[in-house]
Amino acid sequence: VASEHFWPKKKLECLSLNHADVVIVGSTKPDDVPVSWIKPGTTIISCSHDLLSGEVIVQDDVSILQSNMVKNTERWIQSQQYRKWDLRCLKLQLLSPVPSDIEISRAQSPKAVDVLAKEIGLLTDEVEIYGQTKAKVRLSLLERLKDQPDGKYVLVAGITPTPLGEGKSTVTIGLVQALTAHLNINSFACLRQPSQGPTFGVKGGAAGGGYAQVIPMEEFNLHLTGDIHAITAANNLLAAAIDARILHENTQSDKALYNRLVPVVNGVRGFSAIQLARLRRLGISKTDPGSLTEEEIHKFARLDIDPSTITWQRVVDTNDRFLRKITVGQANTEKGFVRQAQFDIAVASEIMAILALTTSLQDMKERLGKMVVANDKKGEPVTAEDLGVTGALAVLMKDAIKPTLMQTLEGTPVFVHAGPFANIAHGNSSVLADKIALKLVGEKGFVVTEAGFGADIGMEKFFNIKCRASGLIPSVVVLVATVRALKMHGGGPNVTAGAPLKKEYTEENLQLVADGCCNLQKQIQITQLFGVPVVVALNVFKTDSPAEIDLVCKIAKQSGAFDAVPCDHWSAGGRGAVKLAQAVEKAANQKNSFKYLYSLELPIVEKIRIIAQKVYGAQDIELSPAAQSQVDRYTRQGFGNLPICMAKTHLSLSHQPERKGVPTGFILPISDVRASIGAGFIYPLVGTMSTMPGLPTRPCFYDIDLDPITEQVKGLF
Amino acid sequence: VASEHFWPKKKLECLSLNHADVVIVGSTKPDDVPVSWIKPGTTIISCSHDLLSGEVIVQDDVSILQSNMVKNTERWIQSQQYRKWDLRCLKLQLLSPVPSDIEISRAQSPKAVDVLAKEIGLLTDEVEIYGQTKAKVRLSLLERLKDQPDGKYVLVAGITPTPLGEGKSTVTIGLVQALTAHLNINSFACLRQPSQGPTFGVKGGAAGGGYAQVIPMEEFNLHLTGDIHAITAANNLLAAAIDARILHENTQSDKALYNRLVPVVNGVRGFSAIQLARLRRLGISKTDPGSLTEEEIHKFARLDIDPSTITWQRVVDTNDRFLRKITVGQANTEKGFVRQAQFDIAVASEIMAILALTTSLQDMKERLGKMVVANDKKGEPVTAEDLGVTGALAVLMKDAIKPTLMQTLEGTPVFVHAGPFANIAHGNSSVLADKIALKLVGEKGFVVTEAGFGADIGMEKFFNIKCRASGLIPSVVVLVATVRALKMHGGGPNVTAGAPLKKEYTEENLQLVADGCCNLQKQIQITQLFGVPVVVALNVFKTDSPAEIDLVCKIAKQSGAFDAVPCDHWSAGGRGAVKLAQAVEKAANQKNSFKYLYSLELPIVEKIRIIAQKVYGAQDIELSPAAQSQVDRYTRQGFGNLPICMAKTHLSLSHQPERKGVPTGFILPISDVRASIGAGFIYPLVGTMSTMPGLPTRPCFYDIDLDPITEQVKGLF
Repeated sequence: VASEHFWPKKKLECLSLNHADVVIVGSTKPDDVPVSWIKPGTTIISCSHDLLSGEVIVQDDVSILQSNMVKNTERWIQSQQYRKWDLRCLKLQLLSPVPSDIEISRAQSPKAVDVLAKEIGLLTDEVEIYGQTKAKVRLSLLERLKDQPDGKYVLVAGITPTPLGEGKSTVTIGLVQALTAHLNINSFACLRQPSQGPTFGVKGGAAGGGYAQVIPMEEFNLHLTGDIHAITAANNLLAAAIDARILHENTQSDKALYNRLVPVVNGVRGFSAIQLARLRRLGISKTDPGSLTEEEIHKFARLDIDPSTITWQRVVDTNDRFLRKITVGQANTEKGFVRQAQFDIAVASEIMAILALTTSLQDMKERLGKMVVANDKKGEPVTAEDLGVTGALAVLMKDAIKPTLMQTLEGTPVFVHAGPFANIAHGNSSVLADKIALKLVGEKGFVVTEAGFGADIGMEKFFNIKCRASGLIPSVVVLVATVRALKMHGGGPNVTAGAPLKKEYTEENLQLVADGCCNLQKQIQITQLFGVPVVVALNVFKTDSPAEIDLVCKIAKQSGAFDAVPCDHWSAGGRGAVKLAQAVEKAANQKNSFKYLYSLELPIVEKIRIIAQKVYGAQDIELSPAAQSQVDRYTRQGFGNLPICMAKTHLSLSHQPERKGVPTGFILPISDVRASIGAGFIYPLVGTMSTMPGLPTRPCFYDIDLDPITEQVKGLF
Repeated sequence: VASEHFWPKKKLECLSLNHADVVIVGSTKPDDVPVSWIKPGTTIISCSHDLLSGEVIVQDDVSILQSNMVKNTERWIQSQQYRKWDLRCLKLQLLSPVPSDIEISRAQSPKAVDVLAKEIGLLTDEVEIYGQTKAKVRLSLLERLKDQPDGKYVLVAGITPTPLGEGKSTVTIGLVQALTAHLNINSFACLRQPSQGPTFGVKGGAAGGGYAQVIPMEEFNLHLTGDIHAITAANNLLAAAIDARILHENTQSDKALYNRLVPVVNGVRGFSAIQLARLRRLGISKTDPGSLTEEEIHKFARLDIDPSTITWQRVVDTNDRFLRKITVGQANTEKGFVRQAQFDIAVASEIMAILALTTSLQDMKERLGKMVVANDKKGEPVTAEDLGVTGALAVLMKDAIKPTLMQTLEGTPVFVHAGPFANIAHGNSSVLADKIALKLVGEKGFVVTEAGFGADIGMEKFFNIKCRASGLIPSVVVLVATVRALKMHGGGPNVTAGAPLKKEYTEENLQLVADGCCNLQKQIQITQLFGVPVVVALNVFKTDSPAEIDLVCKIAKQSGAFDAVPCDHWSAGGRGAVKLAQAVEKAANQKNSFKYLYSLELPIVEKIRIIAQKVYGAQDIELSPAAQSQVDRYTRQGFGNLPICMAKTHLSLSHQPERKGVPTGFILPISDVRASIGAGFIYPLVGTMSTMPGLPTRPCFYDIDLDPITEQVKGLF
């Protein structure tokens, strides 16, 4: 846009400068454009009047700049692509003892998210602000930066944990705080969005902890930008469509059904696009509704769903145990068609797994359409596409596909995006957030993401499922361990959430630590199967003795870790993870020979066996007859080439949670095999998996409150 | 903040100008502050250097201006309070025939919502942006503008409608487009947020229609800013808490229950705030958990809910007919405690009714706590507060309480906030949106809001329930009529959604019109009962003849309407409602003797009778024994002084949908009486009310699609 030297002020005013990312002023004084006309984050470029020699065409709300003006702009955009961030980090005021997470979060004033977005090189049009501290980032960025090399890709995984968790999220956040706020290296943390259910149940928040947190933690733990709500809406629309369709098919003739499915509207009768697609799948090439034969009408109009095969369940984002098994359809209006069903927690929806694995809007739409919800009475799969609901699901998910930008306690950027279950799904945050972050940090920067559960589950799935979907190659694995968990693996007493820790865990006990390091060693070996260097991060607690800490680090290095470093980020913020950050940076420059564990071409059972033997250390696997018949069915239906997503307890390398350390000689029992065809994996069940948590006698909502004057949230932890 | 004439540039840079609403520059050139440092919407005030004589203290991120600087700022803020908006209206490019709603919506580029917010006088800190076209407005505005007089308050109601609806939303939007874009008068439309369920079922969008719409219509009709999702989450947390509590009470001794409810944490045992409140309600003044007697422990720990009295249902925002009647708790983990329950559509939740009626965060929290979910075995009410969940519900609703700002097709402001059912609740949008809008438009401006269903239901509830809650006094009622609906009341054939209109409706028929005007006349009389002037808006269709239109307007005026005006906003935008706007402006200056229809002190049955006789024209009412026993129970429980919210069909003034015109001589049967104690009304059921819609054979999702390249939504209408 030319300045008032070129344009009368009146004419400038009529331009919608509020939509511009770049305003070019034909003057050496950028201030010639009155500030009230432009939005924040807009870049002003000054240039001499000569540069403005091209014709400037002004159309309604858009200004089109031609000739050398345009070239100049392109050059400028190019120059924006590679740069070290000029990030204003937030200072920590460390207190001892460390206050509660919500107190720490509230004591820090986050930067306005539009400022953060600008600092990390996002253009104004690539950001959708949600309040002061959250923003969604548009996927168009991937196109703009497609030629920019990716940064380094770091996975944080863990040893087999205690039920208390070993602090992987805290390490993830501490590491990026160290990299960016203390070592001045561009870095991004990519995290899962937590389910809201447990926030009000037992678990409390999941935004890291202590001085390594995402802030504001109450935003992180509550609705965020509505992605899980969108998943719930899409999931339940599909569920409602299944039952309603069965009812309508059961109560109507082919002709009535067809007349309703393809009605005359304003005198015209036509198939909708999604109906034409179904006709093509049925091998019917006709497009005139009047020309179908009775047999074709029958084929088109009847999905003939076998209700006993329905695998699609309804979801809520609430811990509601009474919905674990229910009977639906008992109102008179449903004419006696009752069936047993269940609700899962929303994050267990296949749509969540799809959100985490998808690479574009087009890809997401295809995956949504491919989701298999049941079989028909001939044993063929029935999909969301068959039900005509693909487009509606994509519409419901159109904003959820954009990652949400937040910040750490030290003001460094974080993406929060997708949070699939770590058992019946792959438990990793989204491919898209990682891809965008890898572009934003630039070649020398780091993206740190996290795998749920122990490395035997979360990391294995990260490599074999998520990296296969994304094509991304990890540079380093950070393996998180605690002295507490190692002592448990060495034979220490049970660790139970809620109960005080036994003295073995609060007093020095080098023997227990030494014995328990077998689990750490095994998890290091698992990482090495994939050819990626591993750095052990020992998450230090105040009861850990220096001798215990030294012992773990020594054994870790002897076991093949590139390095092993104690970390204090929980009590000291990024400063406490500087050594870890330095080790990770070095490791990222090591030779990397990343490879998948198995070929997709292998039969389903063979792939399961490879994981069980090579990763879990099982002697063999044993499929129940039901599992075997499912394997046969999926293979016959053409789904045999999908990767495997094991649903196994995370509390042991084996299927028996009480077997700590490195169990051997066990036969892994596969009780059932299911499939998430849209997400793109087969998931064998090792034992029963609960997909709906419950509320305890005293849920943590007893402590949660809102101050109506200050609007502050209290009691989240 | 002083300019660089006062401060070295370095020092200015360290200030977080991005957080400032007002930047004061000690120079006559506002441009002295570099534009890249400040956010959009910031006001720059220039002043001479002399004004900056006070001491300026710069602290971290905040600049505190003292002495005459501060006074100057205050004076400026004061001066901001009363002003005619300087609003850039969007031009319409009218097409004929009128394209589909989504096409019209998509053809218009909305203003950036931060620009709109600034135009209508919102300060930057009062606005939370959600993407480009939606923003939430903070309640703090009510405090800032508390001394400013309210604008005029206009209610749009309708005659008894056909099942197709008569266009109240369209009139509401057309009217504000006319007022602001054509008559240059500040005005605001306050609308209900539609349920997402019907968007994918039968109904399609609800953002007005034609050239009188809220844009972007797909945002309006989908997740918006997540308020309904927040309601769903809060509603279902409470539902889960009820069943879980019953289970835990059924399976534990008093002692075990008490130990879990009041656990020892880090060696300390204490009651949470909400538990202390419960103790006080039970008449126990102790605060040491160790000091309670066994009897007190029993009273405290057992809510003793009678499962057969549970009235709190789960909700989803999906048309899912199979959830109308279900059995829950059938998993083994629930130990045989099964019961019959149901899901309602989310907007039927009492929390939605509360959102619409609340006046502040404190008030909302109190209402949430007061919600009665069941009775105990002694017949006493059990509340959300008793379950310990009040604070958590308030936390889940903390953002939903802020109205969402959008715009009409012509760029004038709209609040979208709350959308309670119009039968089991009061069917009006929120009190808070109206209150904020009344301040923003200023004394000479207009706020136009809408009542669901016909005036006999929606308007009656608006006056007796909503106006009572808000204390606001309406200036004018706009009564919407169509020739089509009047013909139906005059004896025309049935009108059915989906089926083509019979010829009586597409050809001139003055007799049918004249006969049907009885319904219009009756609705005018109902309005007059409340002492508010009424303007009839005849929503014109292209098949209406000039003679028909004249006849309706003539009869309306003869029946006591202040004026009656045909409107063409659907095809012509605000220009088509200019005459209506002029009539409304005149009517607003008429004498207004607003009064409620009944006193709250009257017995419940008496209040029901007054509504039935004076509004519906019933001869009398008749309560079923169940209804009578509920009335007795609520009266005994102390809820007798609440207003009445009738749950009656909207398709007739009577309880029988097929009785059109003005039915007389009927006895209104009250089959049951229920209560929403938190929302604050008793709702008698006249017949059965469905609270969960279903999906038809061909739901409209067949037409809905997302273009993965342009990201445009297709097929919403």
